[in-house]
Amino acid sequence: MTKVAACQVAPLLGDPAANRELVADAVSDAAKQSAELVVLPELVSSGYMFRDQDEARASAEPADGQTLQLWGRLARDHGVVLVGGFCEAGPTGELYISSAIVDPSGTRAIYRKAHLWDQERLIFSRGNARPPVVDTAIGRIATMICYDLEFPEWVRIPALAGADLLAAPVNWPTGAHVPDQVPTEVVRTQADSSVNRMAVVACDRAGVERGVEWVGGSVIVDSDGWILAGGSRTPSSQTLCADLDLTASRNKNVGGLSDIHADRRPDLY
Amino acid sequence: MTKVAACQVAPLLGDPAANRELVADAVSDAAKQSAELVVLPELVSSGYMFRDQDEARASAEPADGQTLQLWGRLARDHGVVLVGGFCEAGPTGELYISSAIVDPSGTRAIYRKAHLWDQERLIFSRGNARPPVVDTAIGRIATMICYDLEFPEWVRIPALAGADLLAAPVNWPTGAHVPDQVPTEVVRTQADSSVNRMAVVACDRAGVERGVEWVGGSVIVDSDGWILAGGSRTPSSQTLCADLDLTASRNKNVGGLSDIHADRRPDLY
Repeated sequence: MTKVAACQVAPLLGDPAANRELVADAVSDAAKQSAELVVLPELVSSGYMFRDQDEARASAEPADGQTLQLWGRLARDHGVVLVGGFCEAGPTGELYISSAIVDPSGTRAIYRKAHLWDQERLIFSRGNARPPVVDTAIGRIATMICYDLEFPEWVRIPALAGADLLAAPVNWPTGAHVPDQVPTEVVRTQADSSVNRMAVVACDRAGVERGVEWVGGSVIVDSDGWILAGGSRTPSSQTLCADLDLTASRNKNVGGLSDIHADRRPDLY
Repeated sequence: MTKVAACQVAPLLGDPAANRELVADAVSDAAKQSAELVVLPELVSSGYMFRDQDEARASAEPADGQTLQLWGRLARDHGVVLVGGFCEAGPTGELYISSAIVDPSGTRAIYRKAHLWDQERLIFSRGNARPPVVDTAIGRIATMICYDLEFPEWVRIPALAGADLLAAPVNWPTGAHVPDQVPTEVVRTQADSSVNRMAVVACDRAGVERGVEWVGGSVIVDSDGWILAGGSRTPSSQTLCADLDLTASRNKNVGGLSDIHADRRPDLY
């Protein structure tokens, strides 16, 4: 079993230094709970509700900047795999909503969000590279970000590439909801898992930012699509922990002769 | 608003004549509740748990057989659109798990299950044609069957073709489940709706058959992915009814500048 954690924290808008401290504390807390994988929210380095590109640029960092340097130290000091979202300054001035997979050896992969939500497209460039799958000490870890999860074709790519677990930094703004029903953000995350037999950890954020509130629906889903922790509307900061059997993700049998990947019909789609 | 119904009945294995009566009664009951669309289970003409191909063949009928003739009369007499599953005898002796879309003008489309579950592949041939989308008096209705719903690429096809509602006959056998959580069959159905803004009605069955029980999780899901009726484990016969706004399915906006279909990246998948 692998102990995984989602640290639903409340980053401060436009304050990367404060957010580095916030993350250092959160990872330390998760490690004290024996977490081997720690997932952080989308744009945890910077906050989310930028008014314009200049404001976002002021909080952006290159992939070898102070934030990812710190995350590398945290991964090494605590012996964990860390996946989190940051505001990336690209090499030619463009900005990306990115996710990093970091382990004790350093940054293993950077992914840039390919499906931009709402006004993100006015500030950020979209990524064009497929979600990475990184072989780590605890298993094969993939990442993508928030709205990406709503495109099952995109989720299929790392799943077919053999990912055991998809670690997804998210910022799920609150919207219409129905009392007593599982938030649809969580429902879609469960389905992403279930139709691939791939565990998924989505880490949402807390903290009202320029009037925007968040679902706070961080969730740990096993490879059958069941919720192991979280998944309800919880607007405050929280650390979720659960034990996941990542070897289960390597068996795509879903009953009798049925194999959820082999039974696909790529001749038809 | 459109009143839709799912008639979760218990077909008798190997008795098409009895199952025709069962369906006639169910459709009549749904019509009394003002249903304009009635969805029936997978293989409602024949039952499911065939021991071998010979047994299935004895209950199979061509698409112009007595069962679909009756369904045409029921659609005309009650002024409804009817979608149900039947055991189809193909023109050259092959068998299919099929679904028919029938309206007062008669049979509008036949669909043959493309993804065969477990031992179905030992008895039935798989269909190779895409799910049909039929323009009816109540909107554009598509159909596919049970395990097909677990392949989001397949669900995307009728959604992109403009379906307002996907009517899915299913037979969901019981498996592992977690108390107090929504059955994963239902979760996947909600996600199918949510990532396409397309209403989905899945009609499950009742009745123990050769020791096999069914989830009884028939569900009516709106185009936002919310459950309007059903969706819990209910092994007995039941008729679900709900009012659906099918015009909502034609608006793919999911917030601000976000359009769940236009935001796809077909250049990448």
